Amino acid sequence: MRSDVDTHRRKLLLSAGAVLGVGAMTVAARAAEKAPPGAAFHEVAEDPTKELGRAVLSDGGYGLRSQFETEVKTIFPNPSPITSWSFTPLASQIGNLTPSGLHFERHHGGVPTIDPAKHELIVHGHVGVAKKFTMADLKAMPSVTRKHFIECSGNTLTEWKKPTAKNVQVTHGLLSTSEWTGVLFSTLAREVGLKPDAQWVLGEGADAAVMTRSVPLEKMLTDGMIVYGQNGEAIRPEQGYPLRLVLPGYEGNTHIKWLRRLQVSDRPFMTKEETSKYTDLMPDGRAKLFTLQMAPKSVITFPSGDMMLPRPGAYEIRGIAWSGHGRVKSVEVSADGGRSWRPANIENTPEPMCTVRFSCPWIWDGAGATLQSRCTDETGAAQPTRDELVKVVGLNSVYHYNAIQSWAVASDGGVTNVHA
Amino acid sequence: MRSDVDTHRRKLLLSAGAVLGVGAMTVAARAAEKAPPGAAFHEVAEDPTKELGRAVLSDGGYGLRSQFETEVKTIFPNPSPITSWSFTPLASQIGNLTPSGLHFERHHGGVPTIDPAKHELIVHGHVGVAKKFTMADLKAMPSVTRKHFIECSGNTLTEWKKPTAKNVQVTHGLLSTSEWTGVLFSTLAREVGLKPDAQWVLGEGADAAVMTRSVPLEKMLTDGMIVYGQNGEAIRPEQGYPLRLVLPGYEGNTHIKWLRRLQVSDRPFMTKEETSKYTDLMPDGRAKLFTLQMAPKSVITFPSGDMMLPRPGAYEIRGIAWSGHGRVKSVEVSADGGRSWRPANIENTPEPMCTVRFSCPWIWDGAGATLQSRCTDETGAAQPTRDELVKVVGLNSVYHYNAIQSWAVASDGGVTNVHA
Repeated sequence: MRSDVDTHRRKLLLSAGAVLGVGAMTVAARAAEKAPPGAAFHEVAEDPTKELGRAVLSDGGYGLRSQFETEVKTIFPNPSPITSWSFTPLASQIGNLTPSGLHFERHHGGVPTIDPAKHELIVHGHVGVAKKFTMADLKAMPSVTRKHFIECSGNTLTEWKKPTAKNVQVTHGLLSTSEWTGVLFSTLAREVGLKPDAQWVLGEGADAAVMTRSVPLEKMLTDGMIVYGQNGEAIRPEQGYPLRLVLPGYEGNTHIKWLRRLQVSDRPFMTKEETSKYTDLMPDGRAKLFTLQMAPKSVITFPSGDMMLPRPGAYEIRGIAWSGHGRVKSVEVSADGGRSWRPANIENTPEPMCTVRFSCPWIWDGAGATLQSRCTDETGAAQPTRDELVKVVGLNSVYHYNAIQSWAVASDGGVTNVHA
Repeated sequence: MRSDVDTHRRKLLLSAGAVLGVGAMTVAARAAEKAPPGAAFHEVAEDPTKELGRAVLSDGGYGLRSQFETEVKTIFPNPSPITSWSFTPLASQIGNLTPSGLHFERHHGGVPTIDPAKHELIVHGHVGVAKKFTMADLKAMPSVTRKHFIECSGNTLTEWKKPTAKNVQVTHGLLSTSEWTGVLFSTLAREVGLKPDAQWVLGEGADAAVMTRSVPLEKMLTDGMIVYGQNGEAIRPEQGYPLRLVLPGYEGNTHIKWLRRLQVSDRPFMTKEETSKYTDLMPDGRAKLFTLQMAPKSVITFPSGDMMLPRPGAYEIRGIAWSGHGRVKSVEVSADGGRSWRPANIENTPEPMCTVRFSCPWIWDGAGATLQSRCTDETGAAQPTRDELVKVVGLNSVYHYNAIQSWAVASDGGVTNVHA
């Protein structure tokens, strides 16, 4: 996988160079070899207190990350020009937000480039008066700012039958958290008026997939957001620039990106993505439709798969927990494969349908150990073991795997993905 | 000012090109003309639903912002290679976080490039056992994630005597908000032990200024943080990579960047930056030392200076409010220069020593109007008028200007900075 990433990094440098590159070619080529994506290379002074540093705006007025920070989104299993998902490097995430540049990607027709001056949102169907909204219209309306995770319902799909993916970036990296800003759908609904029979809303994207999903009107009115801001600036291109639907706690696919149309109806639209895809095939051969809410889930990010603990001693186990039902209430950690559990510390204030960071001190005695975490949310719902999950939903579905994740620490310190 | 920014942007493109640039020079030069800093240029499809978009990782694994987003930090009044502050474009900020790339800068010896593998924090002085901590040591310790603003105490210093700066980026842009992650000083204090006479702590930076400030031990133990994370990733170079002190609600200069040393003492160190600078000269000629806590403050960012309202009608007044004492309790807005006030909506959940976004609907009838906002915090402290502020502290000081800001809307829709 590393070599795939390297190949892609090289390609990226080529394209970034094509965008930004001017000046002496030899210097450019040499520096490009040294800096990871999103960074610029600078010489390290022997003693930084003896040498004037870079001036303000030496980054051109929009700062970059340090050249020593190298984490990137990655592809699994096979990178290709039409690969359609990339994973957030959860193991290196610090704090509780995902840097916008490392937000996971999942798209079905690639990332379009859309001019916001020409973009419009049409709201029509079972409404009083159909209306078009420009970006300027939407930005002039009352807005809210809320922090929520988005998780692809296919997150962790590699783990149903056997422990497949090596590290937490691939097992759980279709999960990211941002501060979103936009207009509540309820505000738009007041503008257009809803007919008495209105029950569902179709969201449609302006990408090459023309992605469409049906959402219950009740959800749209409760906390559905038409979002143009992410982490303090405009939403990023991969996340739907200039406009996306955010449905807190719902599966990622329903958060329609490049949103251009909302059609209100008395019934769901039964689009391809909610009939042939994004349904849960049960053991009896029938498929559940519209299983939209993401269940409580958590994962330990340190130590996690593919890491090596250098020696026995004191460690701070760290991880992420979340639930589509509401706030995370508690997280427990086990170092013995689920036989005993200890409460973890929650490192930030829990918010509804938002991740929390958790931690738990652990003394590794050098013997084999199996690390697990378990999330319980404010509705009382708790994360199941894999056996409990499979007992209920079987093994036919690829979506909504939220079982407890196990990482085995071997006596040599190596950490691997296992089914405990 | 625009031309200064353009000059700097051009320089930046040169330096970014020097870092990333490879490939055909003509393409590179052409594309560089088209994309702002932090973005890559892509052709806009006539119909994005008819053309496959970009694949995942086409950004090299670390995403960029849209080419249509052009806001940058700016310099005032005179850009030069040794200019030492840059301002956050508050008028275009969406939501409540500052994008890391647009966080204001204020440094005294330039931005050093520091290898985190070699960086250490020494804690010594009136302690039980002096200790050195590597970055790995610090990252292995229990951590917290908290959202706080940082405001330079020189923010708004242009406005003491007359309305000088044209727009909100320059009047109030030495203010930014991030989610910070790191170790509480109280955790480090348990590691080293404090002597009974310990009362102050010196923080020292590894930059060419060797910036030093003294902080009361009580503040350090209450909520002082040794921070390595900002908005989900490593702290940015301009913000102190790999380590900075964060003192929630204290003036920005005390949040020592590139932190390498903490010395515990029984008295303040009376460094240059807390005696000749960062003191408040009173009307009687005496100077107040250690006026560290930032007072309640707010500013309307829309409409604000240098903007033009296209026509009379309904507008959503928007702004930012904050206090170094605790949570923002309420914000009021006036459209008649302070004669009458209306409560504003708070658009996100208030957190201690953190900004909030506020908004307030306003019908502009086309006549001249003077817009103001007023912040009250949970301690009951309220933002003063300029007259009230000057009556108490006079006009000798450059620091800690927190008076109510007035923007005049003329009958042609033009918005200017005024003293009401």
